[in-house]
Amino acid sequence: MDAVMRHEGLTLLGGGGVKTGAVAFHGVAAATAAALLPGFGEADAGDVAQACAWAEAAFDVYRETAPQLRAVFLETIAAEIMALGDPLVEAACAESGLPRGRIEGERGRTCGQLKLFAAVLRAGRFADARIDPAQPARAPLPRADLRLRNIALGPVAVFGASNFPLAFSVAGGDTASALAAGCPVVVKAHPAHPQTSALVGQAVAAAVAACGLPAGVFSLLFGAGNALGAALVADARIKAVGFTGSRAGGLALAGIAARRAEPIPVYAEMSSINPVLLMPAALAARGAALGAGFAASLTLGAGQFCTNPGLLLAVQGDGLDAFAAAAATALDAAPAQTMLSAGIRNAYETHMAARLGHAHVRVLARGAVGALFAADAGVFMADAALAEEIFGAAGLLVVCRDFAQLHEVLAGLEGQLTVTLQMDEPDYEAARALLPLLERKAGRILANGWPTGVEVCHAMVHGGPFPATSDSRTTSVGSKAIERFLRPVCYQDIPAALLPPELADDNPLGLPRLVDGVMRG
Amino acid sequence: MDAVMRHEGLTLLGGGGVKTGAVAFHGVAAATAAALLPGFGEADAGDVAQACAWAEAAFDVYRETAPQLRAVFLETIAAEIMALGDPLVEAACAESGLPRGRIEGERGRTCGQLKLFAAVLRAGRFADARIDPAQPARAPLPRADLRLRNIALGPVAVFGASNFPLAFSVAGGDTASALAAGCPVVVKAHPAHPQTSALVGQAVAAAVAACGLPAGVFSLLFGAGNALGAALVADARIKAVGFTGSRAGGLALAGIAARRAEPIPVYAEMSSINPVLLMPAALAARGAALGAGFAASLTLGAGQFCTNPGLLLAVQGDGLDAFAAAAATALDAAPAQTMLSAGIRNAYETHMAARLGHAHVRVLARGAVGALFAADAGVFMADAALAEEIFGAAGLLVVCRDFAQLHEVLAGLEGQLTVTLQMDEPDYEAARALLPLLERKAGRILANGWPTGVEVCHAMVHGGPFPATSDSRTTSVGSKAIERFLRPVCYQDIPAALLPPELADDNPLGLPRLVDGVMRG
Repeated sequence: MDAVMRHEGLTLLGGGGVKTGAVAFHGVAAATAAALLPGFGEADAGDVAQACAWAEAAFDVYRETAPQLRAVFLETIAAEIMALGDPLVEAACAESGLPRGRIEGERGRTCGQLKLFAAVLRAGRFADARIDPAQPARAPLPRADLRLRNIALGPVAVFGASNFPLAFSVAGGDTASALAAGCPVVVKAHPAHPQTSALVGQAVAAAVAACGLPAGVFSLLFGAGNALGAALVADARIKAVGFTGSRAGGLALAGIAARRAEPIPVYAEMSSINPVLLMPAALAARGAALGAGFAASLTLGAGQFCTNPGLLLAVQGDGLDAFAAAAATALDAAPAQTMLSAGIRNAYETHMAARLGHAHVRVLARGAVGALFAADAGVFMADAALAEEIFGAAGLLVVCRDFAQLHEVLAGLEGQLTVTLQMDEPDYEAARALLPLLERKAGRILANGWPTGVEVCHAMVHGGPFPATSDSRTTSVGSKAIERFLRPVCYQDIPAALLPPELADDNPLGLPRLVDGVMRG
Repeated sequence: MDAVMRHEGLTLLGGGGVKTGAVAFHGVAAATAAALLPGFGEADAGDVAQACAWAEAAFDVYRETAPQLRAVFLETIAAEIMALGDPLVEAACAESGLPRGRIEGERGRTCGQLKLFAAVLRAGRFADARIDPAQPARAPLPRADLRLRNIALGPVAVFGASNFPLAFSVAGGDTASALAAGCPVVVKAHPAHPQTSALVGQAVAAAVAACGLPAGVFSLLFGAGNALGAALVADARIKAVGFTGSRAGGLALAGIAARRAEPIPVYAEMSSINPVLLMPAALAARGAALGAGFAASLTLGAGQFCTNPGLLLAVQGDGLDAFAAAAATALDAAPAQTMLSAGIRNAYETHMAARLGHAHVRVLARGAVGALFAADAGVFMADAALAEEIFGAAGLLVVCRDFAQLHEVLAGLEGQLTVTLQMDEPDYEAARALLPLLERKAGRILANGWPTGVEVCHAMVHGGPFPATSDSRTTSVGSKAIERFLRPVCYQDIPAALLPPELADDNPLGLPRLVDGVMRG
């Protein structure tokens, strides 16, 4: 940590060293608004070009490292993060305003994520190795020897997210999956937590050195403005982008990427209100419990989750009053929480004021940390602004007169990260009828839980149709996330001496391979 | 066939019927420029909307059909295409000018492609089924039951290609892979072969009916203008696009798709000059044989292949004269061929005139069907137009003074579908040094073959970095093509009664599944 503390005005870390400039901004204590030390610089176009040049220079060597070495590298990053000890937790708590338990949990998740991708590398399926042997005697034409493997896409730009200073930031899921794939990574640190970023960046750089990898495998840029990120995405050496943040931010980056001479994929996780359907039997049987559960999920982390349940859908009926009353009681009792930054707090307050002033929206509860509103389905469908995400704890209960109207509300929604069914057995038939629509609207469908809390595992999808993400075919959490940073290459009649190890006859990497359409190993 | 012949002015076929309008254009005999009967209509906005509405209505039922049923459906399409008999071959030969042997081979390939995807459906890996079982006792937090499967993306728009009236058209690779994935398909027939398209469209529609599928699973639109395709891609119900054609066409469609309220993926296979590297030892040992082999590949199908070898790269040295002389002899002797259409012929002649008039490009051979030009590497690198694809048989031999310059030429090239190494054992060391660059430039790397001829198999990649395609992560040929039309959905704690069969505990579909990170079945 001392190394970072000495570098007042840090603009670029990684690639084998650090660069500094004039102090342009400070981290800010979320709880007190006090400026934190040290100050950080604003990376300029030269810094961006430098980081991209390092990444480009490292690419061919890094992408051909053995999967086992990349696995050890990811595990070393996890160990180096843990070795940062309490100063990392303190920095993240101070900069984000999130409580220690949350940050410690997030650190565990971040390290678990790195280890999951190490396991993915050792399992070897990510290479998608395929061999269709030659058929020289085939008529009318012989078949060539054809072999396929995935290779890394190229240097990847990753944007740290404000709401997960560890798990979606410098060594978060985007970085872990891109590094696993064999892509060098250039991270833009989120300006809301520069010191946390610098510490984690040091940990990654230390792992790069410890594993004997080219220094350009990882670089970290600091800056408070948008120009830095725009220049990074526009750099011709960058071949993909990982982003978690606002819809406006994600769309801006996607636009820059699409206008490049060589357009590149942008994986932006942007906007979701995560509808929760309160089905009639569940509502009648346990309305009060659902209200309390909802309030707990809504206010978790001050509502600053991509998967925060911002929309409740119910048909007018038994249990709805009990739900609303219990939710209101819980929200009234919930203590105040510090939001991530003054900017986020201000945006939240602006949205709240608009909703409080809405002529046809009722206020069911307004506590220190969050609020619950209600509107009739007709009002909701007539006002697109009511379906927009409010970042923070603001729930809207939309009351429908019948199932047909609930279906209509759902059908009109944009794509979502999640949709949740609160249901009991008598609700199953109605739920079954809704499922095809839910599958088309969301990347994850939950029953009788709450969408906050995203498990890092093989079956997770943290993704969904636009505008939840910019690419519904992918996930940014879980082992499938590695697929975003790979592309297939076919080798036709390449002599054995020149084949990559994934495709050599003796299978030196011990990969599972599809041979003539049959899985082996 | 009678049904189509009766419907002069056909604009829309499929969705359970046909629609007609005023005759807007005719198919044209490629060899004679004579108009063919019947005349076809121009689908209007209403027809596009109708086809998309049918596809949308069919989607939820079709995507949940058993993979085994979709496999039978694809096989039935193949059988119906064969049942069309000689009239299909005659129509395709007349409209495309391609010889009978080629069309019969292409028909076999088209049917083989449909059967490959039937096998992919039966093997079940496309579903990517994953189960991470609940861990209720895990500390500090229990793990939910999480299950993942791929579902179909939605209705897909497919554009028939001019150069493959069967294999990349109405029931070609894009259609086969989208139907396999569970996506209804709306095809825009290529106006250069409307009658071929109508016949194949009838075959697909017959298979839809025979398999008891919703009629909207397949529709086929006719028209000669660009407005039709633009309207199709812009329709909100379309969720992905498959296209093979020109760079301008592909980029136009990608632009429309990106500007939609909900942007969608466009899989456009656009432009490639398929460099062939003549390595020194191979050139010295077998220059003449390479020249003859090159000429055969260059002129195959009048050079009208995406994988046509338009660029040769060699270091000045032994065998180059023999190569050029043998290529010239073969090109001089090659008989004239009919090109696909007057438009393509005119574009080819325009490009040829420009190249013939180029001050620094030498003409090594100009035969009835194709030509070979030569230029020094410096000239090539100074004139970007020389690296643009000429659709038709026009090869350019770029002579480099040394390996460093050859590397520089390669590094400056745009993305390609293929790159080929002609090499003997003494060339391996130099080839090994080039491979990382070749992998970054192309989707398929060949040794000692020619890039024309794309095997339909598991290990094929017919794709590559921009502008070879719009999405280097994919292939449009081979079993991996199905992945373009799928997206993952996660089911969290969904009751057994509501789980899709792919994820049910007893695995009724017998799928291979990843259970807690371990492949089963």
